[in-house]
Order: sequence, then structure tokens, then C-alpha cells
Amino acid sequence: MLFNETYDVIVVGAGHAGCEAAAAAANLGSKTMLITMNMQTIGQMSCNPAMGGIAKGQIVREIDAMGGFSGIVADKSAIQFKMLNLSKGPAMWSPRTQNDRMKFAEEWRYVLENTPNLDFFQDMVKSLIINNGKVEGVITSLGIEIKGKSVVLTNGTFLNGLIHVGDKQLGGGRMGEPKAYGITEQLVDLGFEAGRMKTGTPVRVDGRSLDYSKMEEQAGDKNPQKFSYLDTPKLTKQRSCYITYTNDTVHEILRTGFDKSPMFNGTIQSIGPRYCPSIEDKINRFAERNRHQLFAEPEGWNTVEVYVNGFSSSLPEDVQLKALHHVPGFEKAKIFRPGYAIEYDYFPPTQLKHTLETKLIENLYFAGQINGTTGYEEAAGQGLMAGINAHNKVHEKDEFILSRDEAYIGVLIDDLITKGTEEPYRMFTSRAEYRLLLRQDNADIRLTEKAYNLGLAKEERLKNMEEKVAKSSELEKFLRETSLKPGIINPILEANESSPVDQAYRAAQILTRPNLSLEKLTAIDFIKEKVEQYNEEQKEQAEINIKYKGYIEKERDNVAKLQRLETIRIPEDFDYSKISSLSAEAKQKLNKIQPKTIAQAGRISGVSPADINVLLIYLER
Amino acid sequence: MLFNETYDVIVVGAGHAGCEAAAAAANLGSKTMLITMNMQTIGQMSCNPAMGGIAKGQIVREIDAMGGFSGIVADKSAIQFKMLNLSKGPAMWSPRTQNDRMKFAEEWRYVLENTPNLDFFQDMVKSLIINNGKVEGVITSLGIEIKGKSVVLTNGTFLNGLIHVGDKQLGGGRMGEPKAYGITEQLVDLGFEAGRMKTGTPVRVDGRSLDYSKMEEQAGDKNPQKFSYLDTPKLTKQRSCYITYTNDTVHEILRTGFDKSPMFNGTIQSIGPRYCPSIEDKINRFAERNRHQLFAEPEGWNTVEVYVNGFSSSLPEDVQLKALHHVPGFEKAKIFRPGYAIEYDYFPPTQLKHTLETKLIENLYFAGQINGTTGYEEAAGQGLMAGINAHNKVHEKDEFILSRDEAYIGVLIDDLITKGTEEPYRMFTSRAEYRLLLRQDNADIRLTEKAYNLGLAKEERLKNMEEKVAKSSELEKFLRETSLKPGIINPILEANESSPVDQAYRAAQILTRPNLSLEKLTAIDFIKEKVEQYNEEQKEQAEINIKYKGYIEKERDNVAKLQRLETIRIPEDFDYSKISSLSAEAKQKLNKIQPKTIAQAGRISGVSPADINVLLIYLER
Repeated sequence: MLFNETYDVIVVGAGHAGCEAAAAAANLGSKTMLITMNMQTIGQMSCNPAMGGIAKGQIVREIDAMGGFSGIVADKSAIQFKMLNLSKGPAMWSPRTQNDRMKFAEEWRYVLENTPNLDFFQDMVKSLIINNGKVEGVITSLGIEIKGKSVVLTNGTFLNGLIHVGDKQLGGGRMGEPKAYGITEQLVDLGFEAGRMKTGTPVRVDGRSLDYSKMEEQAGDKNPQKFSYLDTPKLTKQRSCYITYTNDTVHEILRTGFDKSPMFNGTIQSIGPRYCPSIEDKINRFAERNRHQLFAEPEGWNTVEVYVNGFSSSLPEDVQLKALHHVPGFEKAKIFRPGYAIEYDYFPPTQLKHTLETKLIENLYFAGQINGTTGYEEAAGQGLMAGINAHNKVHEKDEFILSRDEAYIGVLIDDLITKGTEEPYRMFTSRAEYRLLLRQDNADIRLTEKAYNLGLAKEERLKNMEEKVAKSSELEKFLRETSLKPGIINPILEANESSPVDQAYRAAQILTRPNLSLEKLTAIDFIKEKVEQYNEEQKEQAEINIKYKGYIEKERDNVAKLQRLETIRIPEDFDYSKISSLSAEAKQKLNKIQPKTIAQAGRISGVSPADINVLLIYLER
Repeated sequence: MLFNETYDVIVVGAGHAGCEAAAAAANLGSKTMLITMNMQTIGQMSCNPAMGGIAKGQIVREIDAMGGFSGIVADKSAIQFKMLNLSKGPAMWSPRTQNDRMKFAEEWRYVLENTPNLDFFQDMVKSLIINNGKVEGVITSLGIEIKGKSVVLTNGTFLNGLIHVGDKQLGGGRMGEPKAYGITEQLVDLGFEAGRMKTGTPVRVDGRSLDYSKMEEQAGDKNPQKFSYLDTPKLTKQRSCYITYTNDTVHEILRTGFDKSPMFNGTIQSIGPRYCPSIEDKINRFAERNRHQLFAEPEGWNTVEVYVNGFSSSLPEDVQLKALHHVPGFEKAKIFRPGYAIEYDYFPPTQLKHTLETKLIENLYFAGQINGTTGYEEAAGQGLMAGINAHNKVHEKDEFILSRDEAYIGVLIDDLITKGTEEPYRMFTSRAEYRLLLRQDNADIRLTEKAYNLGLAKEERLKNMEEKVAKSSELEKFLRETSLKPGIINPILEANESSPVDQAYRAAQILTRPNLSLEKLTAIDFIKEKVEQYNEEQKEQAEINIKYKGYIEKERDNVAKLQRLETIRIPEDFDYSKISSLSAEAKQKLNKIQPKTIAQAGRISGVSPADINVLLIYLER
């Protein structure tokens, strides 16, 4: 026996899900084993060199608030930071980093190697040891048995991975890396339902061959923030991305490869990520659009490799390149690796409990793409929860479940296990009915105490959070109590195109006006003096709490209404196409499935709470 | 067509040989394409995290003097430096670094990405395009054609790689990475002779599980030097290695796995590296030894992974670990990856010209393990020469060949193509008949001007070298001309247990005495004042030139004698076992082959010039 001890938790796979799962279980005190096919590829970003983005950035901050590491690793390997959607309300503010691909992996490995209770082994897991409906360990390709009280599978795209480039196919879990096999077959024999999904990645090119003068520079934020609530360093220099566009010629050339496209000629039957479509899918589905945006994203600080975001493709590689050569700035682009599609096994996630444990086999957990999701952040969030729950179960502690009003992670898992998903599931703010509560700025306030009680978040996190709450409440109280006379406030209101007042108002009341901000109120000396005692996070929190109080309350009302009316019946043969404000996906799914009630409609994969709301309003008329 | 242009040089594989070949060809001005199965694994150290060592360190310095990059990359990723054999003569001084495995790969990638004329592509080369006995390009696993006027194959252990751990076998080029296939079969069809070789790598363990207090610390040099003659930084901090030993219990446990050893049960027929044997091979071949030295080598600055140098094995993984647990300091060792053996295809190098071009197919070059060598440095040296010669041939320039008295690289290639090798060929100082000329300190003096004329070494290298020669000659002249009276020199001689003199002697004459050194002569004020005007390298060069002049001349005499007597006949059925000073390898080979003449004996793989010398002396008696 190579391994005599029985681990508490065995994690299979060391991508985003596996790394978080292993770190969480080990930090909670479980004897944990992380098995990876290649120790040199721990924490690999398989696709784009970026973390966060809309709704995903919120997940990263939630993971961080809980004591996970995706935020810390992303901060330490960031080459650019942007807070997306700043022009919208705070529910939409979404942090996003560009990352150094190699450094990201290095930082993860560093984190994991410095985690107590965590062992590593390099090998491929070929089967599970299962007795009496319970998992008891794994067996590797070398025939090595590793015993464990629980197992978390995070196989990503590796299970029977099949890579497509045009009409050519290669077995592999990523280009240049072998596939994994054995587990799917075993689980199907045991009664699991398995399916195939598809995802893809774009061509990588030589940055030296690009003409950036023909593209639009997209620099990072002037005052870059970060993901972690801990003291990770802020960026002092950044690398820019560059924006360019496809055009009719590009589309025309791409169409010449359609007959060899595995997506269009029936070779690939499985469904790809709707919101991260291949370029051929985009020009096929949106034939009326004569251009699509592309981002040239640097792969790191010191590399010339560039990721062509938006140009994911499984067309023949020569078609990819020929088309790319007609994109402004890419006329002389040299290719490093072609884009490709990959099909892989997944297990419809309705086979899971809220803890991510499988219903069929006790102590077996799934996290990440194996559950039909797409995205690093979605995977990491599931990994964290699976790691926590595997630990808790083994130690006879309570289940740890986040509800839909506590975290995007709660929305994610609830969606997966109740609705399932027929296509790679990606998080959006629209999937959350309480999105104004689930903000990136308050993930610590929502989650850190829970994680601290669990034993995962360290005291430092709790203290940071408590100080933020205390200080921001103090400031909020000051603003709610401070009265501003017309003589003092009117000049500011006028300067900001806001109607003047004829009596004294509380500062908080003034703040709720659209054009006003805490920053602008600091034109008043005594407010400035007070406000300067608080840091950015505290100020932001106080301001959001004041400014958006009404919206939040209104949203809560809507949600209550939604719940009350959820059983309303929908007429038979209802034509959803005529409701223009429904999302395209919802129209398609609803027309196909023709649900009988709003409740049923709500359970359909891809129909968001926002769609249900639209439907309700329509039906009420 | 993905690639319309015809490259001057296509390099297949991006290990040590491939990286040097690509850099050399591109820097000389060839349009160069480097194809690798995985761009994330460019410049991987497949085995130990170290560069240089005896004879190998000299090769690294030769590569550097020529304008190659192995020295620069090793310097930038070094975590420890040692000059080996300092107690011996300067021919034996051998620089060696421990390296950060990940940083080494990163630095190589950085070098290559910043090399003009060099393109990259990620894919597996499956076959060569050959017309009329000339190579004209390659075809990849995706069916992509890349045209090239010449092709350098550097496939390492990937060609039909087969990994063995005990009685289990896995296809792969390295553990966790797929094998390559197709090329061997095609070349054999074309008339090439191919064979199989075997190499191995030891278990990697978790440094946190080791008890270093039971081992002997081996720190780096107090005044660490470096490989490159350019201005790379010297180490300011270092990490230590630790020495420990096997024992009878360890050997006994290892023996329990012999029946499952692919080395002993006939599964592996191919021959492994004699001088880098597996631990089972050592205890089998040297049954009388009750211990073998092991080195715990850190894998980098920030990792806990440890390479167990000396414990290479393909025994079943549980036997490896059980035995390791009886090594002092390793009682609780946790395993990250088991040791394994790997068999791979090679082409007996007698099929090559001195340029490393194949005799059978024009413009096709082989470098590295594909030629039956072992070692990063040997591979890199061949890669450099193949890259240079591929460039020169394409541009109708002269062949570039280094002779045996110019460089270890010359010895290496001459050995390979004239003697061939039946087992993985490793360089030793004893393979060089002019080893006192081929020192690590004078690689620049030997080679930089040649490389400069070739267009590979930059002007900076030439200037550095010329200044070193000028300055050291100036100091040498001073020491040869400076007369030291007994009253001045005798106190120093006495302090160093050297006989006093009764008349004035030149400083250079005093220096030739065994116990004396330039350092010691600086006890004399006016010598100190002069010597202080020179840097370390200049002083070292002057001192070696003076101190070892006699030895060098004597060696030249021996060589002349060797050549003169080379046709001497050896009696039939001669029993070589009785000549105790012959190496074990030479005895075995000579007894087996029974050469008729000394000349023939000298051509046998594994019979060194030193062995021939021993034989001559014996036969002359």
C-alpha cells in the first residue's frame, strides 16, 4: 500500500474547483489528498487569462469572504483590474482582473503547498472505491488505492475529453494534455445519468505580430481595486487589452469553413455555452450583425502570447487564421495555437443534494464543469462548498448551505440542483432575484461571520468585516442625522443640476438624489472633515446603504410578490415570442416546454427570475 | 494553408536541445519555427532540478560562450551554485546550479519569445515531408503542413514513450503528458535504424514531511559564481540540499520488488544510463556496498517539493516508498509522484554527419536524446550545433564543427557519430583527451571568437573575452617578470610549508609550487597592489596559465604519444579484468568485444581515452 492512511477528503482534479475544495477541507482540519494528473498544471487557467466579470466577480468576492483563495490568487497574479458596470447601480458593479496565466498557477500551487493537512499525488484517477452505496476512496491509473471517507470529483473537461479542430479530432483534456477515462463508465453502471457538453477556446497569437494602432486600447482602472478583503497588494502598474471588431469579410471567410465545422455538420451533438459562443455560432445565430467585438488580452507580464477573446472557434485552423487576418490589427497575426472545441462528460446536477453530495452515492461530491457549469468562478464556488460539506459530513457536522438571498454561490447551486442545466451554466446577475443584496461590496458582510463560525474564515477577516460595518454604520448615522441648510447645500445641488431646496434636509436625504454622491457632499467642509476619517470601503458601504435603501426595499417587495403569485397558470399554447422583453433564451425554452404554471416556468433552465417577472407583469395585464 | 511561408529551420520539440536549436537558428537570421506539443511546457526540466556538474558544467559554459542561452537561463533560475572539484586541478572544476524548475522554464520561454525570427506553434509533429531524399517540412497531428528548408528533431523521451512503474505501463512522454508517435515508423521505413533506450527519474516528496536534522546540509558556495560570461546576476541567497544514505534495510526492502521490476524481469530490454542508474540497479550491481548517497534537492524557491537524487526507480511505487521510509530523514516522507522508468525511441547516432545532419535525409538534423544521449547539457550542446548547422546549410555557408581539442561539445559529437552509443551517453571529463585545455574558465577564450565570426555571439561577448585575455596576459607577464628576493618570499614559503629559497625567483616560478597561490602571494604589498587591479576571472586565468603550464604541456605530449602508438596490436583473448585501473565499463566492453588494436579499442562506446592510456602503459611494459 502506498497510502496507509484513510483521508477525510480526497479531491480529484486541481483546477479552480479542486483547488478551492482541497484548500477548504484542509483548512477546516480534514486530512485531505489532492490528486492531479500533472503537478505542473495545478491551478491552470484553461481558457481566458482573466477572473471575475459580471456576477462572476461577485462570486470571487464571496469565495474570498468565506476564506477561499481564488481572490487572493487572482490579486497576486493580476496584470489589470477593472470594475465593470460602474455606470449602473451597485448590484451590477463587477470586479474583473486580467491575469498572468503562469503566475496564477504558481500562486495557487504556493497557497496549496502551504496549507496544512493537505497532501498531493500525481496520477490519474480511473475509478472510485464504492461499497454499500458509499464512496471509500479512489484507484489510480497505476492501480494505486487511496482510501478516503469522502471524494470530491472536479474533473473539468478531462472526462473522455475529445478535442475538435475542423474535421479533426484528438483525445485530450486540454490541447496537449491527455484525457481522463474510467470514472464516467463506472458511475453510469451505478445508475448515474451522464451527458456530454461542449466548450471551446480561441486561437492564441503572437503579440509581436499585432498592430495595436488599429485597435482601441482598453486600460485598467485608474484606481485599481482588488478581489480580496484581506491585505493583498493593489496593482501599481497594469497591462492594457485592445479592442477590435470582426467584419463582413471575416464572417464570409468563416462561413467557408462551416461545412467542416463539427458544430454545424453534426459531429458535435452536445451543447456549448450560450453566453460564450464560438465566433461561428455568433455569425450564424446573429446573421444580421455585421461585426462582433474582439479583445486582444495579454497572457501575462512577460509573454508575447495574446488570447483573442471573442474568437473561440472549432473551425478548421486555416479558416480561423485566414479570417483573423481580416480583423483590423490582426492582418499579420501569427498563430501559436488554434482555437478548438472540446466535448466532455458531465453529470446532470439534479442528481445532487444542496451540499453537492450525490444522491446516489454517499460521501461523493461533484464540483465544477462535471456539474454542467462553465466558468472558473462558478467552478471555484462549487469547489469551496463541496470541500466544506465533505469536511462537515465526515466530521458529523451540519450541512453548510447558502440560500439564494445570501450569495450568488447559493443561487448557483440551487439553480443547478433544482433546475438542472442542459447547457453549460454561467452565472449572471439576472439569475439572482435578490441581486441588490448580493453585491460585490458586501460579500464579507454577508458571509464572513458564517465562514468564521464554520472555522474557515480567520479572525482577521472577521475583524476587518466588523470594523467595516461599525465604521460605515457610524458614518451612515452621521449622514442620516446631519442637517444641511439650503444656504449650504443649494450651491452643490445647482452645480450638479439638481433642484435647490427651500428648507434644511438631512445629508442622507440629499444623497438619494441621482446626481449626488458622498464625494460631492465633501465640498462642504465639515462633511469633508468627517468623511476623511473613513477608508474607501467604509465610505462606499455607507453611501450604498443610504443611496439605494429605497431600491433594495422595492426589490424585496417584488420578490414577495413573485413568491405569492408563483402558482399562476399560463394559458395553453402561449406564444412567448410576442413578449419582447423576455430574453431570447427564455423565449426559446418556454415555447419549447410550454410550462403550465409560472412555478414550472421558473424551474426551466435558462429562464431567469427577471423573465418570470416580465411574464407575471404580462399575465397580470 | 495555415502556414504559407517556408521556414528556414523548423525545430521539433522545445526541451533543452530544441530551445537552443531554435534560439541559435533564429539569432543567426533564419526564419525559424519551434513546434511543441504544449506551449506551457517549453524548457521543462524533465528530471533533476539542476544544471551543470562534472564535464556538464563545462558544456554549459561552452554553450554560453557561443551565444547560447542555457547558462543565462540557469543563472536566472538558480537557487544554489557550487563549483565542484575545487580540490582538484582546474580541468576538473565544474560549475553546477540547483534550479527553480518552474522559473527555469519561464526564463527559457521569455528568452525565446524575445528572439526575433522565431515563431511558435503548439501541436504534435506526426510525420516529415520528404521528397527526393530531402526533408521539406513537417505534418502535425491536426494535419497541418509546415514547410521548412530544414528540420531539427529534438523529441527527447517522447517518441513512443512508454512509462514503467513496477509491472504497470503507461504511454507518455513524461508522466502526465502524452507520447509522440509516427516519426520513428516513417524514418524506419526510409531506412533509418532505430532503437530503444531507457531512462528513469526518482520519486518526488513533500519537503514538509522530511526531517532535515537527520541529514547533512549541503549549502551552496560561499562566493557563488555563475555560468554566463555575460552580466547575469550572482546569487545573493541560496537554498541548501541535504545528504543522506540508504542502508541494508532499505536495500532489503527494495529487493522485495525485484520480481516486479521491469528492469529485472525482462519487461524493459533497452539499456539505461550507466552513470545515472536506478537505485535497484545500484544495489544489484554493487551488492557489496551497504549504502548509497542520496540528495534531497529543493525544486525551487517557493515550493515544498523535493527531488530525491540517487533514488531513481521503476520498482512498484509502494516498494519505493516503503524503502524510502527507512532512509534517515525520510521516515515520514510523503510521496508526490513515484519514480518511474521510461523507454523511448532513439536513432543510433552513427547515422549522422559531424553537423548532426542525417546521412540519409538531407537537411534533417537530430539533437538530444533522439541521438542516444542523456543529460540536459548534452542535449543543449547538440541543439546549439544542429541549429547553427541547419542555418548555415540553408544559407549555403560552411559547416560549423568543433574539434575534440576545442570543446566538450566537439568531443560529444565526435564520440556520438564515430563511436555511436549503445547506452545513454553522458559526458565525463575522462572522455576528453585534452581536458586540461577544455576548462570551464576558458570556454570564452576557446569559442567566443568563432561564434562571433559565425554571427551568433554578440560583440559584448567578444569584448568581454578580449579584455579578459588582455588583462590576464598583462598580469601573467607581470608575474613572470617580477623577481622576488629570498627575504621577501621566504616568510610566505615557510608559512605554507614550502622550502625556502636562497636566491631570487620569479613570482611565476614560485606560483607553480603546490602549496602556493596568487592569493598567498598578495601578502607581499607590491604584488597585492598590482593584483588588486584585476577582477576574479582575470586573476584566475593568469594563475591557471602559470600554475598549470607544465601539466598542459605534459598532457599534449601524452596525446601525441597516444596518437603515435594507436595502432598497437592487442594479444588475442586478452583478459582485461586483470588491469585494475581500467574503468569497470571498459573492462566489461573490452572483454566482450576483444578488439584487435588499440585504435579499435578506442572506438568502442564507453572506452575512454584514459582507459586507452592505461592499456598502452600496460602493453608497453
